[in-house]
Amino acid sequence: LDTESQSLIARLRSGEPRALARAISTVENRQPGWTELLKALFPHTGKARVIGLTGAPGSGKSTLVDQLAKHYRKKKENQTVGIIAVDPTSPYTGGAILGDRIRMQDHHGDPGIFIRSMATRGSLGGLARATADAATVLDASGRDVVMIETVGVGQDEIDIVRLADVTIVILVPGMGDDVQTIKAGIMEIADIFVINKSDRDGAERVEREIRTMQSLAMRTRDDRWTPTIVKTVASEGVGTEELATSIADYEAYLKKENLVFKKNVENWQERLVEMLRDAMLEKARAHMDGGSLERYAAEIAEHKRDPYSLVEELVEETARAVKPT
Amino acid sequence: LDTESQSLIARLRSGEPRALARAISTVENRQPGWTELLKALFPHTGKARVIGLTGAPGSGKSTLVDQLAKHYRKKKENQTVGIIAVDPTSPYTGGAILGDRIRMQDHHGDPGIFIRSMATRGSLGGLARATADAATVLDASGRDVVMIETVGVGQDEIDIVRLADVTIVILVPGMGDDVQTIKAGIMEIADIFVINKSDRDGAERVEREIRTMQSLAMRTRDDRWTPTIVKTVASEGVGTEELATSIADYEAYLKKENLVFKKNVENWQERLVEMLRDAMLEKARAHMDGGSLERYAAEIAEHKRDPYSLVEELVEETARAVKPT
Repeated sequence: LDTESQSLIARLRSGEPRALARAISTVENRQPGWTELLKALFPHTGKARVIGLTGAPGSGKSTLVDQLAKHYRKKKENQTVGIIAVDPTSPYTGGAILGDRIRMQDHHGDPGIFIRSMATRGSLGGLARATADAATVLDASGRDVVMIETVGVGQDEIDIVRLADVTIVILVPGMGDDVQTIKAGIMEIADIFVINKSDRDGAERVEREIRTMQSLAMRTRDDRWTPTIVKTVASEGVGTEELATSIADYEAYLKKENLVFKKNVENWQERLVEMLRDAMLEKARAHMDGGSLERYAAEIAEHKRDPYSLVEELVEETARAVKPT
Repeated sequence: LDTESQSLIARLRSGEPRALARAISTVENRQPGWTELLKALFPHTGKARVIGLTGAPGSGKSTLVDQLAKHYRKKKENQTVGIIAVDPTSPYTGGAILGDRIRMQDHHGDPGIFIRSMATRGSLGGLARATADAATVLDASGRDVVMIETVGVGQDEIDIVRLADVTIVILVPGMGDDVQTIKAGIMEIADIFVINKSDRDGAERVEREIRTMQSLAMRTRDDRWTPTIVKTVASEGVGTEELATSIADYEAYLKKENLVFKKNVENWQERLVEMLRDAMLEKARAHMDGGSLERYAAEIAEHKRDPYSLVEELVEETARAVKPT
């Protein structure tokens, strides 16, 4: 590790927000030395509580996350917070960065709350990987709580939050026809359900629906936990304390049942596969110049080549191109 | 190719729905011979019009797709239709299969409309890949129109539809606070916007917002097409003809501007990368027994190993394990 990286790590570990921002950019954009940085940071990880929050657009995720952040910053708790907001905003609208600024202002420049948006995935590696890497950096920097919020309909976003230590699914009363479908899809990943905007009509109905689904679920969870339901009105701060208690309850349950390590191992299995997938692709692309991919694509579009045989050939070629260590 | 596969292909090419269902299952579940099947089918592809439709939950995607399917089945058009509905429903609710049955009934058993749900991604390869492969099978079977519908918030789902020849984004009036964000994220992928449920309050506002965004977009589209906006009330069949006309208009535009091949090449470049990623991962997993992944994950969870160095090692090992051809 060069002296610049060493200094970055030292500043990061002392909690300096600018060093944190730079380190996240390095791993997010795969800038030179990003892997070495992660390797150096890894021994310092494993201390943060990682909380994932997901919900449909308009469910009030950001407001709820901000309320939780404020809660953890209180004197009684006195925990430092890192927030990763995964945002499908287009790169050229600048919405993500603007959003960060607005949200940071709301926290009156408290350096104990660090917010970072992940708007787009890079050319290499997916958004899930970038988010996991950013969470690793936040963890290594000594943040006590790391919150990851995503719009939770796509599989990608669901993958992101389900690897958190605690996964929270946010529902709101009075959603559209397909809500039932989504709820079914996320029943498995929620450790805690939040019914936000619970002062609206229909909150009781949402709760009943969750309960019905829980009783109908044919497969019991591996950890035998029955997801709790917390009602909030995040815009008014109602229910934040109860949610924080629910989070602590689930963490305590995992500890009591000796499930923390087991859950960790399962999560790492999934992450390893993702990382391996990305690394293998990088390897394959490394020995293809930019032009050859386009040439291959043209040959396929002209039906001169079938893509399935081509991919098999490329895998063999890549393997042969890797020099033995 | 064995005789069984040859007979499957023959029945598939003659339009037999059961052969179609079986072939899709084979590629979706990566059953033995799936790659050989795709290789054999590839020369028969490239004829179908592939239409991708995406929209938030509750935007009426399925209803709109069904209306379009009915339109294409009319005597005047007389086209056969294949529908792939990408559905994030949980595997154990059985929602996807049930949904197919209900929708098929609505088409009174017309064999000219084939509906298939893709509910979950397999352990290998993503949902995007499985969907693309299913579309290839439908194309090779001689379906004139292939429609792919997805819930369009996640990156994964967006990736699925943007590789269609024509991409349609469905909006509805009166959505939540985050709609602005989503709309920004999908501005780039929409060739046509549909404002469904346009009899509701706020349809004009949605249209104005799309127009504003179009005028603000700093980057012009590569194909210089200005996405059209079509208003529909899918539940009453209102606007279906107009939408079909818009689709035909965009197709005609691509043809006139000689952009069909260019778009095809670009799409294949992206697909090749995805396919390569999956194939490389498969290779990496092939020489790891089930136990070693878990063992590695445990070592990481115990902080005995860092995952970044491990992945580098596994890539090298995999390469060495591939036998030279």
